[in-house]
Amino acid sequence: MSAKVWLVGAGPGDPELLTLKAVKALNQAEIVMIDDLVNPAVLEHCPDARIVPVGKRGGCRSTPQAFIHRLMLRYARQGKCVVRLKGGDPCIFGRGSEEADWLAEHGIEVEMVNGITAGLAGATNCGIPLTLRGVARGVTLVTAHTQDDSSLNWPALAQSGTTLVVYMGVAKLPDIRESLLAGGMRADMPVAMIENASLPHQRECRSNLASMQQAAHDFQLKSPAILVIGEVAAQQQIQALAEIA
Amino acid sequence: MSAKVWLVGAGPGDPELLTLKAVKALNQAEIVMIDDLVNPAVLEHCPDARIVPVGKRGGCRSTPQAFIHRLMLRYARQGKCVVRLKGGDPCIFGRGSEEADWLAEHGIEVEMVNGITAGLAGATNCGIPLTLRGVARGVTLVTAHTQDDSSLNWPALAQSGTTLVVYMGVAKLPDIRESLLAGGMRADMPVAMIENASLPHQRECRSNLASMQQAAHDFQLKSPAILVIGEVAAQQQIQALAEIA
Repeated sequence: MSAKVWLVGAGPGDPELLTLKAVKALNQAEIVMIDDLVNPAVLEHCPDARIVPVGKRGGCRSTPQAFIHRLMLRYARQGKCVVRLKGGDPCIFGRGSEEADWLAEHGIEVEMVNGITAGLAGATNCGIPLTLRGVARGVTLVTAHTQDDSSLNWPALAQSGTTLVVYMGVAKLPDIRESLLAGGMRADMPVAMIENASLPHQRECRSNLASMQQAAHDFQLKSPAILVIGEVAAQQQIQALAEIA
Repeated sequence: MSAKVWLVGAGPGDPELLTLKAVKALNQAEIVMIDDLVNPAVLEHCPDARIVPVGKRGGCRSTPQAFIHRLMLRYARQGKCVVRLKGGDPCIFGRGSEEADWLAEHGIEVEMVNGITAGLAGATNCGIPLTLRGVARGVTLVTAHTQDDSSLNWPALAQSGTTLVVYMGVAKLPDIRESLLAGGMRADMPVAMIENASLPHQRECRSNLASMQQAAHDFQLKSPAILVIGEVAAQQQIQALAEIA
């Protein structure tokens, strides 16, 4: 029995942003356990696999993590080739390493496949570079999700000089604004809020730190969305115009 | 004339971490302008294209950026399909947006294709998750390269509670150590230094903030390498051991 689980990043949504390695894993998968945020279009690479949705159950609650663990283990011990497919990258807010460690401790070989994270793809599609010489020498990716007990040091982030990319922040806009303002970030710092990153129906709402909550309300911004906070969020896609010869 | 330039991320080195979109761009490329840090193995996807290396010239100096700009423009105006291939992602320390803006201002259509950045792939290959529930709620990518005049706020980074991933830091280890220690980061903070991220000859050197310079010297660490600084850098790949039935 070649018990093996692939923990695969499905990327941000655009099926063309899958890696070749992810496609290879899907091609040989017998079981694909798929999260909510994964674009089902990527399943064209595994037409014969059994698809097991584990993002939500009953439409209201998340599948418990322990249940996902045991399910992966059961399939792997049956000798099945299992792909666990996650949105973005498995190890950027994806709990990939928790799953990998648990499986390895139970004797299952694991292979991790990186994916393009949504914050990067969403910003790129809006013409926003996450780093820019002379403007932003770095970028910080954080989650506003509170299931994690560790506390973020928002004042330090406000002072870091890096572009901030906030995942799962839509419900936390007031907290994020207050924390960053209290940390000394200027009120007119540019903000881009990006819904459905990298998909054809991606929408972007430009604003600034002080007014982002009102702007999101007027825009009817919905989760999942990414916030990009920093000087670079003022950058726009430049359209190529034909030059006069 | 369909003048168009693709700005494509070639990923961290492992050719299987190319995206499908990057492969599509390479398939139709007539000219491929390639940086030093790109693994030439990815050129199997463009066997008929003319390859133009623009990373270094004469083995000692970088090709001036203005020269690269003009060369892309010239090929595009000849109606050629041009792919500009960069290591990692074009917009994470890649100057992709500068090139895109310049080309668009000169009437050339540009399409950007994201790639997996080296810091992510290198860490994943070492069993290090860049974020981890209860340990690191975020990750900051920065470059230590000094061509950029903007100054980094190292004390804020030391206090941010995010994992730090430092690109182009090998020559700057003493500065980075002093800055982070002065910013209040503890001396025994785990550090992983990763050479040739994602390639078969990837090497990793584990250490901590206080001793990383000596460790890098003993290890004969060479550029290009990535530094991962933070609690997560103590994580190890767990090997799957067969359970006793």
